[in-house]
Amino acid sequence: MITRLKDLLEQTDNRKLKLVVVSCHDEEVLEAVFESYKLGIIEPILIGDMDKTYEIAKKQNFLLDNLVLINELDMVMAAEIGVKMVSKGEADFIMKGLLDTSTLLKAVLNKEWGLRSDSLLSHVMIYDVSTYHKLLYLTDGGMNIAPNVEEKEKIMKNACIVAKALGNTTVKVAKEKVDSKMNATIDANWIAEKYNNSEYDGNIIVDGPLALDIALSREAADIKGVESRIAGDADILLVPNIEMGNGIGKAITYLAKGKSAGIVMGAKAPIVLASRSDDHITKLYSIALGKMVASKIYV
Amino acid sequence: MITRLKDLLEQTDNRKLKLVVVSCHDEEVLEAVFESYKLGIIEPILIGDMDKTYEIAKKQNFLLDNLVLINELDMVMAAEIGVKMVSKGEADFIMKGLLDTSTLLKAVLNKEWGLRSDSLLSHVMIYDVSTYHKLLYLTDGGMNIAPNVEEKEKIMKNACIVAKALGNTTVKVAKEKVDSKMNATIDANWIAEKYNNSEYDGNIIVDGPLALDIALSREAADIKGVESRIAGDADILLVPNIEMGNGIGKAITYLAKGKSAGIVMGAKAPIVLASRSDDHITKLYSIALGKMVASKIYV
Repeated sequence: MITRLKDLLEQTDNRKLKLVVVSCHDEEVLEAVFESYKLGIIEPILIGDMDKTYEIAKKQNFLLDNLVLINELDMVMAAEIGVKMVSKGEADFIMKGLLDTSTLLKAVLNKEWGLRSDSLLSHVMIYDVSTYHKLLYLTDGGMNIAPNVEEKEKIMKNACIVAKALGNTTVKVAKEKVDSKMNATIDANWIAEKYNNSEYDGNIIVDGPLALDIALSREAADIKGVESRIAGDADILLVPNIEMGNGIGKAITYLAKGKSAGIVMGAKAPIVLASRSDDHITKLYSIALGKMVASKIYV
Repeated sequence: MITRLKDLLEQTDNRKLKLVVVSCHDEEVLEAVFESYKLGIIEPILIGDMDKTYEIAKKQNFLLDNLVLINELDMVMAAEIGVKMVSKGEADFIMKGLLDTSTLLKAVLNKEWGLRSDSLLSHVMIYDVSTYHKLLYLTDGGMNIAPNVEEKEKIMKNACIVAKALGNTTVKVAKEKVDSKMNATIDANWIAEKYNNSEYDGNIIVDGPLALDIALSREAADIKGVESRIAGDADILLVPNIEMGNGIGKAITYLAKGKSAGIVMGAKAPIVLASRSDDHITKLYSIALGKMVASKIYV
């Protein structure tokens, strides 16, 4: 079981899965891609502006000679080429470079040649905070604005797939509490009614609605007299909406100084989708995360 | 300017303001009250079950001889007595003990003898996190569920009063970003339209909507190319709803291991309103915070 993000780099398997990078011509993106290649994690396929790519590679003292390189300046075309490669099995997973997320996802969701599945695309962030005893998964703080009950269930399952790929035999999901007077609470009792305190899917334990302190602290649960099998030991925080996920995530990054890795699940392959402001190590961890998920689940 | 919570204890003025504690018979509450008395911060007036209070005091080796003690087992009556003492000027501020928040606030809001003002009651939390260079104010994560524009303005002003009482000459308010597709976004552009990047009230600078990373990190603002005079230097985080405030606050407490103090503003006196799960030091800081605000603003 992976309990720290650096283990993603160390516990990678020997297979160099093929990562296709769409609109790759970005310094930070390429730095992370080159490093993960050197670490034996992936074999990159680069699609984008090759003039710029060569320039960046030269600056970083990286030789492009052995790589598959596709010169395509148009972002829509680059996305189509990248997605089709994964569809055809020529690549194992995909990473967003210097293009709009919507452009990439439109290609991913294309009905003819895209990577659609029965699930919903959702964003899974994994935080490694020194004050917590294992990795903390947060979903969905990046993609689904205000998911309904059915969508939330798919979001939860996507995160569980990631947790299982990282070796969690039991996954503890804390559904975040929503105040009952709020608009967003139509499904406040979703868990309580359907899954509360019950084994959900063999080895997934869902409980909630739980406030964040209960999910993270056994002591807080004891003081408040809250009984929960996952108190203080949550793996996944299932938040009610994107703004809450975003707020908690940024508090972790900027105040708890946690490290992170992010991935989009729900397509036929993992999508590495880092934010511009993510630092180099976050991008590297995200690639390693995509590789591990692709390797354990999809390939 | 108070930049760390411990300074609240050290920079308290010599006046022992009178704190009336409603339904005081709680070990944790009394421990914090006794300690703040010993530190010369306040002079307590205790209302509640005096048998239990004497018992707890004995256990904590504290002599009650010199204090005003009122034996009142009924919580509604205890709240009324406490609030009336503040109304009449016999006490300077008020603290919630072992009673429901709603019972205390009902008394505070009584139209005949309560502590109503033109403002709105709102909760202000102050966090002291080692990773941030000064105190971080968060509002409202404890009282107003989903405030509208007018309410938000009052919530902001309440927090600014606290910040000014703690010596902030300029108060930088970051209005948290809300996704425009969400229900809660009726006022997403409140600041942008009315106050964006403008001096609001002499020495209050409001900017937003800003994502949390921009509010807390100059570097993140630079990478994202966001221009804001308060980037990386926010004093107050004005969040869109209680669940977001609660989530960010708990992430700070449990993952960033921040210390905190909380207070309710908007009445004619500060209300110290700690949560059961708050530890002893949080309660002590909250009393010292109430004292400083009462001392600088109200008394």
